[in-house]
Amino acid sequence: MAKFIIIGERIHCISPTIREAMDTRNPEPILQRAREQLDAGAQYLDVNIGPAESGGEELMKWAVTLLQEHFDNVPLSLDTVNQKAIEAGISVYNRSKGKPIVNSADAGDRIRNIDLAASQDAIIIALCSKQGVPADNDERMTYCQEMLERGMEHGMDAMDMWFDPLFLVIKGMQEKMPETLEAIRMFTDMGFNTTGGLSNISNGMPRHIRPIMDSAVLAMAIQCGLTSAIVNPCDLRLMETIKSCDVVLGNNLYADSYL
Amino acid sequence: MAKFIIIGERIHCISPTIREAMDTRNPEPILQRAREQLDAGAQYLDVNIGPAESGGEELMKWAVTLLQEHFDNVPLSLDTVNQKAIEAGISVYNRSKGKPIVNSADAGDRIRNIDLAASQDAIIIALCSKQGVPADNDERMTYCQEMLERGMEHGMDAMDMWFDPLFLVIKGMQEKMPETLEAIRMFTDMGFNTTGGLSNISNGMPRHIRPIMDSAVLAMAIQCGLTSAIVNPCDLRLMETIKSCDVVLGNNLYADSYL
Repeated sequence: MAKFIIIGERIHCISPTIREAMDTRNPEPILQRAREQLDAGAQYLDVNIGPAESGGEELMKWAVTLLQEHFDNVPLSLDTVNQKAIEAGISVYNRSKGKPIVNSADAGDRIRNIDLAASQDAIIIALCSKQGVPADNDERMTYCQEMLERGMEHGMDAMDMWFDPLFLVIKGMQEKMPETLEAIRMFTDMGFNTTGGLSNISNGMPRHIRPIMDSAVLAMAIQCGLTSAIVNPCDLRLMETIKSCDVVLGNNLYADSYL
Repeated sequence: MAKFIIIGERIHCISPTIREAMDTRNPEPILQRAREQLDAGAQYLDVNIGPAESGGEELMKWAVTLLQEHFDNVPLSLDTVNQKAIEAGISVYNRSKGKPIVNSADAGDRIRNIDLAASQDAIIIALCSKQGVPADNDERMTYCQEMLERGMEHGMDAMDMWFDPLFLVIKGMQEKMPETLEAIRMFTDMGFNTTGGLSNISNGMPRHIRPIMDSAVLAMAIQCGLTSAIVNPCDLRLMETIKSCDVVLGNNLYADSYL
């Protein structure tokens, strides 16, 4: 099996530093976060420019070019609800190190992003929701089916559809967690790739708890077959856990230096 | 579901300190290790007196009485190949806080420990091996079946048979690890309780890696349904992982103070 794929989440406009750097086209803060994440072991970098209703196309093109020029065509996940901005980003994207990821489609209004990914030979993150939070795995599987059909109609390779069960916050929805893990197992049993925004599970928890809880959940999710996640690769405990799970599952040969 | 059961492994005659304390009937080193493990969150304490071919009966009685008198009848796992010593220990055991655990039976020569556990209304750790290491899960399941039949013949409650897949050392048998986890999943699907000597997986690894690897494997094993393990409860990272997994599976309600 292939190693677990780590998509670094830290180039995100929710950060005031990144927001300002994007607004002023200031490369350094973005390059610094990219460097930190790549040094920590990220394979993909997520680039979240927010809704970016005006100027999103130029911004995404700038960010893609900036990151790929500085980091040897690092593969990227293009993250915005502005579909034209994603298209623009892909138009300047160099795929020599990996296909672009479109982040994301759902089974509702954003299902058109599947068509986009299909037409651009990109990977699509297929979020199993339509309006709000899926009530249970019946809903998740219905949405999965709808998105899969859409992808097949448009000629997607099913392996390029990375299904995201939607990780829910434990503090407030604790009882949903076993079902989320079970959803990953179901996707895995069907042969699909999977991903998700892991850190949502520990939202609202005290700062010292988050790496502990995230690591436990990630190991459990990897045992269920999770093949990638959108995480903070600078979380040392989390990265140690991922590397250990890769050894356990035989995705990486054990050596005393594996960490 | 019930919380994960932690059996503290640190009262073990392989430790020179404990060996000497057992030989000289010196209570303090044993009580200290018991206290440390209970303070760290162990529910059961394993008492390993080694082969104890001569004097094992007196030694086990002494240790059981010592620990239960000092720690409010703490439940114990009696760990020796000397069957008479286990019987002797049970003869003085107070079960007000939990049944004694007989550690352990296998499908070979030690299958008679199942008869002992049945006759004493004890829990039995049923190690899925016969001669040496099980080659695969077909072998594990054959041994499971043999031990289960033996237990049923002697009137055991199946819930008191805690099946142990035999955790194998990663350094040297890395490729066996996924199947061990799968064995736990199979026992769980059959409705059985499970346990095992977890720390064997990281034998021979550098000291700083062991808590990392043990924690990753334990979270994966708990996701497969593992209900207890024989571990070092003074390993902080491991205990944090167990407590987090208990929250994820809903065995414990989340609170910011859950650690």
